[in-house]
Amino acid sequence: MIAELISVGTELLLGNILNTNAQYLSRELAELGITVQRQSTIGDNPARLAEWVQSAKSRCDILIFTGGLGPTADDLTKETVAACYGDTLQFDPEEWAKITGFFARTGRAATPNNRKQAMVPVNGRKIPNSCGTAPGVWFEQNGKIAVLMPGVPHEMKTMWSKTVRPWLMQHSNCTLVSTTLHILGGESAIENAVGPLLEAENPTAAIYCKTGECEIRITARAATVEEGEEMCRTSAAKFYEILGDAIYDENVPSLEHTLVQLLNEKQLTLATAESCTGGLIAQRITAVPGASAVFGYGFVTYWEAAKAKLVGVDPAVIAQYNVVSAPVVAQMALGARAAADADLAVAVTGIAGPTGGDEQRPVGTVYLAAADRSNAYVMHINISRNNREVVRQRAAGYALEMVWRLAKGLPLNGCTALSAAQAAEPAALQALAEACAVPVAARRF
Amino acid sequence: MIAELISVGTELLLGNILNTNAQYLSRELAELGITVQRQSTIGDNPARLAEWVQSAKSRCDILIFTGGLGPTADDLTKETVAACYGDTLQFDPEEWAKITGFFARTGRAATPNNRKQAMVPVNGRKIPNSCGTAPGVWFEQNGKIAVLMPGVPHEMKTMWSKTVRPWLMQHSNCTLVSTTLHILGGESAIENAVGPLLEAENPTAAIYCKTGECEIRITARAATVEEGEEMCRTSAAKFYEILGDAIYDENVPSLEHTLVQLLNEKQLTLATAESCTGGLIAQRITAVPGASAVFGYGFVTYWEAAKAKLVGVDPAVIAQYNVVSAPVVAQMALGARAAADADLAVAVTGIAGPTGGDEQRPVGTVYLAAADRSNAYVMHINISRNNREVVRQRAAGYALEMVWRLAKGLPLNGCTALSAAQAAEPAALQALAEACAVPVAARRF
Repeated sequence: MIAELISVGTELLLGNILNTNAQYLSRELAELGITVQRQSTIGDNPARLAEWVQSAKSRCDILIFTGGLGPTADDLTKETVAACYGDTLQFDPEEWAKITGFFARTGRAATPNNRKQAMVPVNGRKIPNSCGTAPGVWFEQNGKIAVLMPGVPHEMKTMWSKTVRPWLMQHSNCTLVSTTLHILGGESAIENAVGPLLEAENPTAAIYCKTGECEIRITARAATVEEGEEMCRTSAAKFYEILGDAIYDENVPSLEHTLVQLLNEKQLTLATAESCTGGLIAQRITAVPGASAVFGYGFVTYWEAAKAKLVGVDPAVIAQYNVVSAPVVAQMALGARAAADADLAVAVTGIAGPTGGDEQRPVGTVYLAAADRSNAYVMHINISRNNREVVRQRAAGYALEMVWRLAKGLPLNGCTALSAAQAAEPAALQALAEACAVPVAARRF
Repeated sequence: MIAELISVGTELLLGNILNTNAQYLSRELAELGITVQRQSTIGDNPARLAEWVQSAKSRCDILIFTGGLGPTADDLTKETVAACYGDTLQFDPEEWAKITGFFARTGRAATPNNRKQAMVPVNGRKIPNSCGTAPGVWFEQNGKIAVLMPGVPHEMKTMWSKTVRPWLMQHSNCTLVSTTLHILGGESAIENAVGPLLEAENPTAAIYCKTGECEIRITARAATVEEGEEMCRTSAAKFYEILGDAIYDENVPSLEHTLVQLLNEKQLTLATAESCTGGLIAQRITAVPGASAVFGYGFVTYWEAAKAKLVGVDPAVIAQYNVVSAPVVAQMALGARAAADADLAVAVTGIAGPTGGDEQRPVGTVYLAAADRSNAYVMHINISRNNREVVRQRAAGYALEMVWRLAKGLPLNGCTALSAAQAAEPAALQALAEACAVPVAARRF
């Protein structure tokens, strides 16, 4: 099945809005086995739109529209497409009641223009909109389909997943089951490691990448949900065999969600002490609903004096080893844990740039420590991107990963331990500094 | 002048990549007075591409391509477009030397495929790529132009602003000067206030919106830079007349940049005490290079015990007024200022959701305080979006705004003052709680 996406809206052509709908729908359609051959964005011009729809209709099986369902006079998408699919529109009292009800609840009155939004196809179907006023529409003529959805992303996504996707699956008479694996590491390294598995036809596996981590989405087409789930499990097992514990979770929004859930399960609390990340780690943790069950204290110790005062770093250790050093980050983590009386703590100090680097500590130099009641585990890395935002984001990602591994009882590869009892002992700090003198190579991938 | 944008790449059609190039170029072209009539994304298929280019060429004056300049066999964009514009390609030894040099520096060898990237137009022009290996190309036939640039956003943007934009301006024989005003408030309110000014033709003024703030970009077409600057100043003055101090700065990356610069100029230091924003305010401040000159201490006091221990909130006050209350946030700000020995502090406590709200304090209830050595200024607002991320982002934005206004000596509308000397006095706290009982209406716009 061949599809084209058509986004309607002058605001897109002016660059006022970023078109995220096209990416979302393209991913979804790829998963349904529907090939997207073209994405277009056009303005609210009925003549050009009609011409475009006629030619696109001849090229492909399904046209998917977003936008152009608004109440204003220039929103003529629905009328235009109806004509191209041999359909007409009629007034739907039920939709009108929804629209007037919506306005009444927000203390306003619907205008005559809004009646346009209550027009639905005579032959085709209306698609319920549970988040807004304008229903979507589905036209069909000689096996060719046109689907019109709102342009507002959350309205569109809800309409898609609740109604349009299930209808398309009925249409193709199959069941789809998906599982997403979340993996720590960079895209090209992961792709190299699992390359052939990404070529599979059913289940398919597609890789998507974000800063410091990737997702692999496995999708099986099957006769039943049970069969599809089994196929996904078999495929996932092959990825686990290669990637091991680099796969930190399945079907979660983010690493911090996984961490907060793990800490919850293990009844562990966490504190943070941040220098170069400046609150980013705490912010990511507290972005998770319910984080307050495991997180109570975060220290942003941007100045040396703050490191001494809030988390008990010894100023002499800063003077001897530099504030960006293994002994300092170890004392930050152990001190934050103690100051918060938490079970675990994580700390980071480094040079985010753009200035402040030198030959010994170039921009991107970062020291991290994760601590429990017995030890601090310290890692020295170089995030070799001369970009403040990237250095901070990746440092926060490493920090979350280290705590996750510590809480889960996984080995902390590349880390050197300092016992809490020896945190003030010069010989132990010297040994730690020496062991961490060279940054560790990129982790696992 | 009418333009179409054509993005080439199967990875876009699969939804693997978000197309940010189309928005960027649309904004830029709008500013040049060039109308974008269509944006399209197509795959690496030469037959479909040729057909598409021929029809687009007949519809408009300039086609702007991104992507498809890579070294692999399926990247045939350049060859295909050359043929459509009556041009051919020839090998360019200078570009080839750049390409082989690039590979040598990264310890690799160029492959025969890479020679494709050194092919440049016989009649048209090559466009230098200062960030990557593939040069862009410019074809021209009978007044119709085609521009091909790389798909990698930073390569494309650099090529655009360094070369393509100036060439287009030469072509249209004019000079453009722009100024961006940064404004606190929501888009529709601002649009209503300045509506007619957004209709102007020269200078034009376009509004772009992000969470809690907007930008208005003024662009003048003039014979000289001086004249253009004068036209921008005259237009900006009209916006200042209406929007006043809601315009917080011009031509800056963000509110936090403006704040850090102001604190620097005034030699003031700042501390933070965050509950529901969980480190987000500190993170935004430390995202600004050089923030360490003004920011040393951040407290993420997620638990009540942390509020007491780190910033000296009185547990009895929490018990009496609730942890989400005006007296608590005032004590947080005053306490953080004192604990950090900073000149200023800002604090926030609230209910970000999705759970934790009740009738008296629904999700989105937020109390903010900005303090100097004499007073805390407290505001109670309701951010009526049932979305944790939005509540947190907007609360952080209000916090940054309050400190900015305090440091700048602007009135803190909607705030109630509590003197630092009375921060522990029951009667003063009671009066503050009463004054802040009802959330303030949306600020200025």
